[in-house]
Amino acid sequence: MSETNKPRENAMATDELAGGVHVDAQAVDDVRVAVAQRDADAVEKALDELDPADAADVVEQLSANETQAAARLAPDAFGGDVLAELSDDALEDVVDALNPQQIADAIHEMEFDDAVQLVEELDDDMRSQVLDKLSPTVRDSLEHSLKFEEDSAGRLMQRDFVSAPQFWTVGHLIDYVREAPPDSLPDVFYEVYIVDPAFHPLGSVALSTLLRAERSTALSKVMAPLRAVVTPQMDQEDAAYLFEKYDLPSAPVVDAEGRLTGMIMVDDIVEVLQEEYTEDMLALAGVNEAGLADTIMETVRSRVPWLAINLGTAILASAVIATFSEVISKIVALAVLAPIVASMGGNAGTQGLAVAVRSIASRDITSSNVRRIVLREISAGLINGLIFAAIMGPIAYLWFHSVLLAIVIGAAMLINLLIAGLAGILVPLGLKKLGADPAVASSVFVTTATDVIGFFVFLGLATLILL
Amino acid sequence: MSETNKPRENAMATDELAGGVHVDAQAVDDVRVAVAQRDADAVEKALDELDPADAADVVEQLSANETQAAARLAPDAFGGDVLAELSDDALEDVVDALNPQQIADAIHEMEFDDAVQLVEELDDDMRSQVLDKLSPTVRDSLEHSLKFEEDSAGRLMQRDFVSAPQFWTVGHLIDYVREAPPDSLPDVFYEVYIVDPAFHPLGSVALSTLLRAERSTALSKVMAPLRAVVTPQMDQEDAAYLFEKYDLPSAPVVDAEGRLTGMIMVDDIVEVLQEEYTEDMLALAGVNEAGLADTIMETVRSRVPWLAINLGTAILASAVIATFSEVISKIVALAVLAPIVASMGGNAGTQGLAVAVRSIASRDITSSNVRRIVLREISAGLINGLIFAAIMGPIAYLWFHSVLLAIVIGAAMLINLLIAGLAGILVPLGLKKLGADPAVASSVFVTTATDVIGFFVFLGLATLILL
Repeated sequence: MSETNKPRENAMATDELAGGVHVDAQAVDDVRVAVAQRDADAVEKALDELDPADAADVVEQLSANETQAAARLAPDAFGGDVLAELSDDALEDVVDALNPQQIADAIHEMEFDDAVQLVEELDDDMRSQVLDKLSPTVRDSLEHSLKFEEDSAGRLMQRDFVSAPQFWTVGHLIDYVREAPPDSLPDVFYEVYIVDPAFHPLGSVALSTLLRAERSTALSKVMAPLRAVVTPQMDQEDAAYLFEKYDLPSAPVVDAEGRLTGMIMVDDIVEVLQEEYTEDMLALAGVNEAGLADTIMETVRSRVPWLAINLGTAILASAVIATFSEVISKIVALAVLAPIVASMGGNAGTQGLAVAVRSIASRDITSSNVRRIVLREISAGLINGLIFAAIMGPIAYLWFHSVLLAIVIGAAMLINLLIAGLAGILVPLGLKKLGADPAVASSVFVTTATDVIGFFVFLGLATLILL
Repeated sequence: MSETNKPRENAMATDELAGGVHVDAQAVDDVRVAVAQRDADAVEKALDELDPADAADVVEQLSANETQAAARLAPDAFGGDVLAELSDDALEDVVDALNPQQIADAIHEMEFDDAVQLVEELDDDMRSQVLDKLSPTVRDSLEHSLKFEEDSAGRLMQRDFVSAPQFWTVGHLIDYVREAPPDSLPDVFYEVYIVDPAFHPLGSVALSTLLRAERSTALSKVMAPLRAVVTPQMDQEDAAYLFEKYDLPSAPVVDAEGRLTGMIMVDDIVEVLQEEYTEDMLALAGVNEAGLADTIMETVRSRVPWLAINLGTAILASAVIATFSEVISKIVALAVLAPIVASMGGNAGTQGLAVAVRSIASRDITSSNVRRIVLREISAGLINGLIFAAIMGPIAYLWFHSVLLAIVIGAAMLINLLIAGLAGILVPLGLKKLGADPAVASSVFVTTATDVIGFFVFLGLATLILL
């Protein structure tokens, strides 16, 4: 190979690595064809030559049926390294196709926190079969984790970590790490926790600090004070917030007595953030948990409940219209204009709602500023109301040549946008106060309010003024 | 201190650390009172006793005016450590209140990537004044970073990293790190990049691996192959996707020739994820960038544009209703029922849209499965349509005692929910194909389609069948 070719090859390798942002469409096709031809070797080959994360991406492109067929044909291509990278939906499909022994083998290859995620996806019967086939240590650890609630920090926690007493020196710690049996340490760690004799964490030493310090330095000298600790009962969302706030690469987990009991790594937190954001966005749009689901029937099931509720509220709004049938039959322009008032209110309410939900999730709204933010939203609603009353009044006048009608729609617009401002902030805050998720159900309450009130105010004012 | 008190104290300390998930309301009050009394010392004291991340949280609770007053009174309390933790909005308020020298001092205390974020917030005039006051090295590095586009990976990149040639041994690398001047190394790093003679990255060695390896081991033996590299031109969202996919603690950045030129750390990526998710959620709800803004007028400005567009589309939908004035004046029930059809379509469309936007963002929709997903959404729309036609038809019959009216609303519901399914998936995919952000403007297109078509189909069928 001539020397001059080298940079070029490297540039290509770089392109390929940076290209990981795209899923390998060729590999997806290869697997799909291999599955269709029931060619186990070809499935295995196509997946095995990829990085496990890329192989997982490819699997996520397949339909549920294709995934299951692939896993049944070539279970060896679905080892722990690939399963660890799969989305929950795809993981569920794969484990449905594997037998307990195959799943147990995969678990033995996985990092502990990934194994917990896998076991979560198993139904009770399969779970106990798989647990029976695991080594006693792994089984005990998994059973311990599963005792913590779903979506709690305890489920994210791995039980391997490195800790050292504060009276050790840097040299002492380095020797300890070098000599420890590899199984007793986590595969990867970014910091060492310093503990007191009762095993309470006191601080941490980043490995990059450790590497640079003199061997004779006391750990207490290079230790950074702890910025945050996690408890296993903490909601995973709260744990994620601590990582975001304090820029943590990992965090110590302590038990009820404050003793160090585990560690959470940032890569798991990145996944939690993804999950929580997706949940919020789908909840706001009225899609149930299994929102990114695969099959048509799963998709329907995830959407029907909120559509049914929306039907109820839409009928409620229509009942309001129905009470004004008489005035509408005399002035059909009201039937034409009423949806504009309702639509603007719904839109403004949704805007405020999205801002409130994000602000609550990122802890930007607290008891210290809630009054100011509510006032801001109401004021903004009032100003928006004035602006759009001033725009819509003249439009209604030009359209229907009635000053009174213009006044009615202007006033209704003003009132409904004010209501939208109020509902957009108070509904999510109220749900939060009641201990409910502010993203779930907020939309329904807000748009019901703006629809019902929008129709009622507009048609009510029309009855009073125009008749 | 008696021995028996110890666990208790530690447990308290733990509570306090785990308590970082809540903003310190007392501290917010203290700062607010101190600002009102123009007591510079009290402002400084209240903020200085907190962890910088907590101090930043407290500042984020203040109004823009309070923040500026606090920064003017006690500029020393707004050092680099606090500024690095502030949200963009709060940061903007603080830097407005500081003079160029104060900002330059803060920058010298900050990590490089945080300094870039700060300088981004300065207006051109202030930026050049601040740059003039910086040390030449820092100024050069900042100017280099600012050449990359906003929201590109180049802006997140720090230029300090640790690299070693592949022929070194572990001992050689450890000695190099120990002896390097502290300024030449990043404060914290999790891995060392192994490079070839032309400075192309070949792999990485995690510090935890390095610590455990024998000094005589060749780096090439303990090196993990690179899973991903970032280029400075890459969108920050793509870089974040690589971190998520490959569980990276940091990633090497390479220049156009594939040479190692910088490093991105996971804590910056966590911030990017926050930003991007917030952007998507607000965009879907029709709120402009400055969505979490502070003042009433900023709030109004962030919402008026989309409300204005919504007004336009609502008028369009009303124009459709207006063309059916005659039939409505004869059968007022149509004015009562039409909004139900539109509302259900809007809701179903929004559901599909939210799922599509999340799936596009997380790369779950690709060329390999787009056909299947579009088909799934259309099928789900059809099934939802059948379900709600079957529910709404009888309701309309019971309400208005007209079989024909029941048939009309059932048919309109079916058609509009099918349209909603189509629009919910095709609009975001189309925007994406055109190179636009699928979250922005999608809602307007989808709800316009479902409103206009909903009204048209329902009133049109009514005209055909009922008259």
